[in-house]
Amino acid sequence: MIEGLLDKVRNQKPLVHHITNIVTVNDCANVTLALGALPVMAHALEEVEDMVKAASGLVLNIGTLTPKQVESMIKAGKKANEFGIPVVLDPVGAGATPLRTESAKRILGEVKVSVVKGNSAEIGVLAGAGGEIRGVEAVGSSENLLAAAKDMAKNLGATVVISGARDVVTDGERVAFVDNGHPWMGTITGTGCMLASVIGSFCGVERDYFKASVAALVAFGLAGELAANRPEVRGPASFKVCFFDELYNLSGEKIRAGMKYSIV
Amino acid sequence: MIEGLLDKVRNQKPLVHHITNIVTVNDCANVTLALGALPVMAHALEEVEDMVKAASGLVLNIGTLTPKQVESMIKAGKKANEFGIPVVLDPVGAGATPLRTESAKRILGEVKVSVVKGNSAEIGVLAGAGGEIRGVEAVGSSENLLAAAKDMAKNLGATVVISGARDVVTDGERVAFVDNGHPWMGTITGTGCMLASVIGSFCGVERDYFKASVAALVAFGLAGELAANRPEVRGPASFKVCFFDELYNLSGEKIRAGMKYSIV
Amino acid sequence: MIEGLLDKVRNQKPLVHHITNIVTVNDCANVTLALGALPVMAHALEEVEDMVKAASGLVLNIGTLTPKQVESMIKAGKKANEFGIPVVLDPVGAGATPLRTESAKRILGEVKVSVVKGNSAEIGVLAGAGGEIRGVEAVGSSENLLAAAKDMAKNLGATVVISGARDVVTDGERVAFVDNGHPWMGTITGTGCMLASVIGSFCGVERDYFKASVAALVAFGLAGELAANRPEVRGPASFKVCFFDELYNLSGEKIRAGMKYSIV
Repeated sequence: MIEGLLDKVRNQKPLVHHITNIVTVNDCANVTLALGALPVMAHALEEVEDMVKAASGLVLNIGTLTPKQVESMIKAGKKANEFGIPVVLDPVGAGATPLRTESAKRILGEVKVSVVKGNSAEIGVLAGAGGEIRGVEAVGSSENLLAAAKDMAKNLGATVVISGARDVVTDGERVAFVDNGHPWMGTITGTGCMLASVIGSFCGVERDYFKASVAALVAFGLAGELAANRPEVRGPASFKVCFFDELYNLSGEKIRAGMKYSIV
Repeated sequence: MIEGLLDKVRNQKPLVHHITNIVTVNDCANVTLALGALPVMAHALEEVEDMVKAASGLVLNIGTLTPKQVESMIKAGKKANEFGIPVVLDPVGAGATPLRTESAKRILGEVKVSVVKGNSAEIGVLAGAGGEIRGVEAVGSSENLLAAAKDMAKNLGATVVISGARDVVTDGERVAFVDNGHPWMGTITGTGCMLASVIGSFCGVERDYFKASVAALVAFGLAGELAANRPEVRGPASFKVCFFDELYNLSGEKIRAGMKYSIV
Repeated sequence: MIEGLLDKVRNQKPLVHHITNIVTVNDCANVTLALGALPVMAHALEEVEDMVKAASGLVLNIGTLTPKQVESMIKAGKKANEFGIPVVLDPVGAGATPLRTESAKRILGEVKVSVVKGNSAEIGVLAGAGGEIRGVEAVGSSENLLAAAKDMAKNLGATVVISGARDVVTDGERVAFVDNGHPWMGTITGTGCMLASVIGSFCGVERDYFKASVAALVAFGLAGELAANRPEVRGPASFKVCFFDELYNLSGEKIRAGMKYSIV
């Protein structure tokens, strides 16, 4: 189902427009390039509509949001909707402050989002299932999370991705579990943000966003596993170098051999 | 005195809220994670109070300040004061432009800061001892710097850290010299900013901020020394990778074996 | 002609003031340091004039521009003109949105720029020769580009640099081709931005900006070639580490041995 999508990304080189945070913006650009897609970052209210029109995907990340930036996100999101361009929302820190929770909800209310990707706390908060967050890291989640995420997906007409040791993907009907990934990925900042870039890249070449999200999680997690096996890894920074390299060196063949997911 | 603090950081994982510059924000997040603490970056005036309330430390860095960002810093700083959360100020480039000098002074006037950390020129300018700065790098400092720093510490009721080949720490009474560190650290941008993150992390677990600052300088400098000894180092970028890795791999035992400081 | 300029950068350590984008600002600072110059990043309208006065070069990069940031660029640029400090413009994404095209033109109209550096599409658009751009990457350019760039250089009284597999430099009279460089450089984000920092550093020590630009392109491209030959390179991230290291380890001797340029 998903093995051929990486080649599609590399052949089509989808342009992925990001309105994102200042912490991990460089990593998001490099991960998009390493995968084979083309990143562009632009946030001025005066140009986001012009930029997104040329793109094949839009990634909105509220990691260091301001009210003004949220305006740009909504403007870009509406234009993306008009042109049928997939929108990925990464509601970083939803639940940590009212500004984050309300901004995420406002974007979901005003923009038709294709994929919402968060950790268990962020999705729990937005799905109404609760969740505990410290800063931007989940420290607790509800047992009812999957059911709530399915409802959320149905209500939004979107795919919901809950990232974690075992990732969960649902479009309200289908549910997938992805077990690719490695604990090293949690030792560096921005893996969540980078994952959203990878999802945006796959959505740029595959209109079944559930399938695109599963493919993105598998590719991203497998690159982490392959990197973790490299003899160069001595800590988080050497892991990060290997991780980007392995994403660049990933192939359909490696994905076929290493993918760990199930659809229920 | 300080050997046990690193384990405390790793056990307690203090959340360190940063309002910082766009140049080194990613490095600050990663250095905080590598040490074992939890970073969060948030600067919107509308959320800084909510974010800092959940934190164990606040780091304010004026490296790419705007007047609006300074408002956020003061708002967050006052809230931190209200909750007894330690505040670390990194007055990047104080002395280089009036905006930087005045903003640093304004923050020190309106917020009760726990630690002020700067190079010899930045501290010299703020302590009234003079100092010469090019961009954000000290190129000259006063001979009276230590006495001025002690007075500054007393007046502010704060710990003052002067980073350099030999770091100086004073709370107005005690003075410590720290000789850990390595010249490679000066070849990459942001070591000063990262040091402030490390100080903020230690202050999150140790209420004697003089002691926390000494511990931070020792850990940070020792990681630099250990990294410099790695055979992988061929220049500043490979050094940086090793530096983050060594910070991650640091232990109380390594600190006991390698710490170089004296208190007078 | 150019072999001695790197040593001049290292001896004089020119301060290079950047007003630049949030994506690659850290890389620009580190590349400037690796070369031997001193970076400073400052964008507040309230301080750019004070900062640029102390600098030996100013780099303006519109990669994540806002109208407010463009005001800061123009204010800093005019002050640089007043003090005879060279200004390098990197019109990232000119042609991709009206805001970018118009802002680049406005800067060129209000500030006397010393060097304009862009890819074939950006320069093509600004020189009136046309050009196709996706996001911020050139995907097509005019056959008349060199002639248009020469006219542009003459009209502006500036040096125009078109970066690509074969770089082109012209001041309207002289034309140079630089063939140093390596395809790995295109696999990471920000090589264009970093190149502008390197040009700004060389312009800080050499008033013949045509010559400074050629020297910058040779040094930058040669570092890429030397990095690509390193056995550590397994992908874009390990290449990037080697690239910064090689730039740091560059010497006049290596440049003499490896430079590939011709002036016609």
